Amino acid sequence: MNKVETKWPPTYDRSYLPKNDEPYWNREVETMDAEQLRQHVLEKLKRQIRYVYDHSPFYRKKWSAVGFEPGDLKDFKDFEMLPFTTKQELREDQLENPPFGSNLCISPDEIYHIHGTSGTTGKPTVFALSKGDWERMAEAHARIMWGFGLRPTDKVFIGSVFSLYMGSWGALAGVERMGAAAFPFGAGQPGQTEKAVRWLLDVKPTAFYGTPSYALYLAEKAKEMGIDPKEFNIRILFFSGEPGAGVPSTRKRIEETFGGICVDTGSMAEMTPWMANGECMHRQGMHLWQDIVYTELVHPETKQVVPYGEEGVPVYTHLEREAQPMVRLWSGDLSLWTNEPCPCGRPYPRLPKGIYGRADDMIVVRGVNVYPSAVEDIVRSIDGLSDEFRIVVTRENIMDELTVQVEPDTAGAHDTNALTNTLQQKLKTVLGLTVQVELLPAGTLERTEFKARRVIDKRSFK
Amino acid sequence: MNKVETKWPPTYDRSYLPKNDEPYWNREVETMDAEQLRQHVLEKLKRQIRYVYDHSPFYRKKWSAVGFEPGDLKDFKDFEMLPFTTKQELREDQLENPPFGSNLCISPDEIYHIHGTSGTTGKPTVFALSKGDWERMAEAHARIMWGFGLRPTDKVFIGSVFSLYMGSWGALAGVERMGAAAFPFGAGQPGQTEKAVRWLLDVKPTAFYGTPSYALYLAEKAKEMGIDPKEFNIRILFFSGEPGAGVPSTRKRIEETFGGICVDTGSMAEMTPWMANGECMHRQGMHLWQDIVYTELVHPETKQVVPYGEEGVPVYTHLEREAQPMVRLWSGDLSLWTNEPCPCGRPYPRLPKGIYGRADDMIVVRGVNVYPSAVEDIVRSIDGLSDEFRIVVTRENIMDELTVQVEPDTAGAHDTNALTNTLQQKLKTVLGLTVQVELLPAGTLERTEFKARRVIDKRSFK
Repeated sequence: MNKVETKWPPTYDRSYLPKNDEPYWNREVETMDAEQLRQHVLEKLKRQIRYVYDHSPFYRKKWSAVGFEPGDLKDFKDFEMLPFTTKQELREDQLENPPFGSNLCISPDEIYHIHGTSGTTGKPTVFALSKGDWERMAEAHARIMWGFGLRPTDKVFIGSVFSLYMGSWGALAGVERMGAAAFPFGAGQPGQTEKAVRWLLDVKPTAFYGTPSYALYLAEKAKEMGIDPKEFNIRILFFSGEPGAGVPSTRKRIEETFGGICVDTGSMAEMTPWMANGECMHRQGMHLWQDIVYTELVHPETKQVVPYGEEGVPVYTHLEREAQPMVRLWSGDLSLWTNEPCPCGRPYPRLPKGIYGRADDMIVVRGVNVYPSAVEDIVRSIDGLSDEFRIVVTRENIMDELTVQVEPDTAGAHDTNALTNTLQQKLKTVLGLTVQVELLPAGTLERTEFKARRVIDKRSFK
Repeated sequence: MNKVETKWPPTYDRSYLPKNDEPYWNREVETMDAEQLRQHVLEKLKRQIRYVYDHSPFYRKKWSAVGFEPGDLKDFKDFEMLPFTTKQELREDQLENPPFGSNLCISPDEIYHIHGTSGTTGKPTVFALSKGDWERMAEAHARIMWGFGLRPTDKVFIGSVFSLYMGSWGALAGVERMGAAAFPFGAGQPGQTEKAVRWLLDVKPTAFYGTPSYALYLAEKAKEMGIDPKEFNIRILFFSGEPGAGVPSTRKRIEETFGGICVDTGSMAEMTPWMANGECMHRQGMHLWQDIVYTELVHPETKQVVPYGEEGVPVYTHLEREAQPMVRLWSGDLSLWTNEPCPCGRPYPRLPKGIYGRADDMIVVRGVNVYPSAVEDIVRSIDGLSDEFRIVVTRENIMDELTVQVEPDTAGAHDTNALTNTLQQKLKTVLGLTVQVELLPAGTLERTEFKARRVIDKRSFK
């Protein structure tokens, strides 16, 4: 049995496996009550903070500016005095202290894996993980995967690119730790999606990991090849990298298309083990597995932790990381949290609506806040439309215009006027805005094998 | 100290590391004399064969056709009575027994990783590895990497695609086992090579793994970006997937371009741990690490094992594989072996000229055998030519014509007539054939990020 670990950083028995019908990987922690969990997390937090203080010039500098020392940390209230960390800060620190920055808390010789951001915008960031970090990530991910129903008898197709991106590697490490069969197929090479369809048919994996956009793209490819994605017979599809799997109608589309369950996971690559945001098999929003990564929801303006039931920015802190630990990393995402009980019985708070936006993704059109995920939800709830859409914002004279471009699906003849009207009506009802709808010929919109970019803002202040 | 393992399959201590200045990972085995090694290999072979007989319907059927039982195996002579296995047979067996074939010797639940051939020609083949297989591969590769000078303090850039292809995964597993820093960057995505150049500059890995073609392509890209590949400061470049690293002038080009040593490794994906063909730091041809994979060189026609000093087809047999073990797998490659001592002192035979051709790659032009690797060696020995070339075979009336297409390098002005004449002269001397030479504008020939295809045979009998 996987006990409460009192050493820090914890080392987990890599041969441990629960019995197949056991719902919890770590029953002792996962059945704690809220107060026990709070104490357990606080103990780990104190040790992580002590470790960071002793090893990270980056944080020592940040904390000395506010006069904080690890001994000051008695309760979460003390912790909430600590400054946030932003991605921008990390990037600048790495520019000044190349390549790993001044938050590398291990010797360069102890680095086990190097990854990073893809750096499509600006200077990329470098991630270093120690061997212990890798093994703890594998343990955490195996535990969370167990929670959503994966078992050692599963065969897991990993349909996302293996390169800098931590998503694929994190999924793989969890699958390997559990002892399920890993099929690390990857993605992103020209022609690879058609191959994926054939391999899925041949090898019949029981689980799939990727981005929601890619799963839908793959399904479309399969249909073009005359194959119903249900033939793959996948029982669990789990996702990260995009909010889609937490958007109700996208989830519904994925589940109806593949005939398996759709599970939402994922925080940030910097926060690896990133699956510490992860749904259980009941799929009522991602749990915050607080004993792996400690997460607060913080008001975007007051910067205070918000009560359950309210919206805020997830702010993450590692609890068992040796190399490049993050303390109060400001995600910039938006979500809403609750502590209402989940049927699974775990004491973790949940994000019942997933991560539905980013402070900086939100589009303000004529004074109305529009989240791309809200548009996604509406588009995918309408039968007869394909999964793709694009949001185009323009300014004519002084008036902002929001146009949603969609396509009919390829199933057959549609009443295009009716489709357009239905969509326009729903958008108006939900967003409170009159929106232009453009129905493009099927297949016009770009499909993606990775993370989709679906907003085009043509207004001049951008 | 890493002792001679007497259990089968062996389990290795995953925390073991030699001292940094120790030349051998497994001194006890690597300093045996030839006779001790012979006995050690024979013992492992008997156990592998017994295991295969007990678990593989595929081999039981093959062997019962020749009346062989494991008890019959007393010496290598008995072993040489066993039939060869061909890739074609494996493919057909998997078609009849999808997806893993009748040579899967473990339960499907015990499969740890699934990989395969890319299947560019015909039906792909599926590879299954058990967890033990994976760990033994990691151990074997770490041991061989140690032999060519890699150490836990190295940072290893893996510049080949992570998908079905076993090359990247095998290199990664070895690096992870040794505890060097793995930087699994991958390859094959559009635009990834330019990114690779920038990451190499930023992170400064000390070692590089990929295909020889890709290393040269990457160097060319770097130069286009105004960067001398020596700035990467890579001390070891190791390769598999193509014969290039064993071709003297290609090796020289790589070493001169990067300023690091060029190491040749690799047998076949089916034979994972494929690094069991692998050079030591003296780089006098790949050693056959006979206690990991037992290799014979077999005459292509008589099918008898050839004496040292002669040319033959490498035929491989696993010695510590649980899932899909191969017994006498016919590679179809061509090489020459020797047992002359290597300065490293290891008792393993060597392939001093690498794997220089394939029985079916050989082009017969007007009765003369031409190996593409011989053309490669000539082209790359001429200053002023780029690394790329293409061999085009045509038939005009009844006469075969061989044209070698090359390009000047981008270094500056060249006397194109002199270049053409030099190449034509050398080709005639070495091949014994008059060959057409076509000097194309720089950058015309296709560059590859993976394995190069450089022969175009336009004759109608193909």
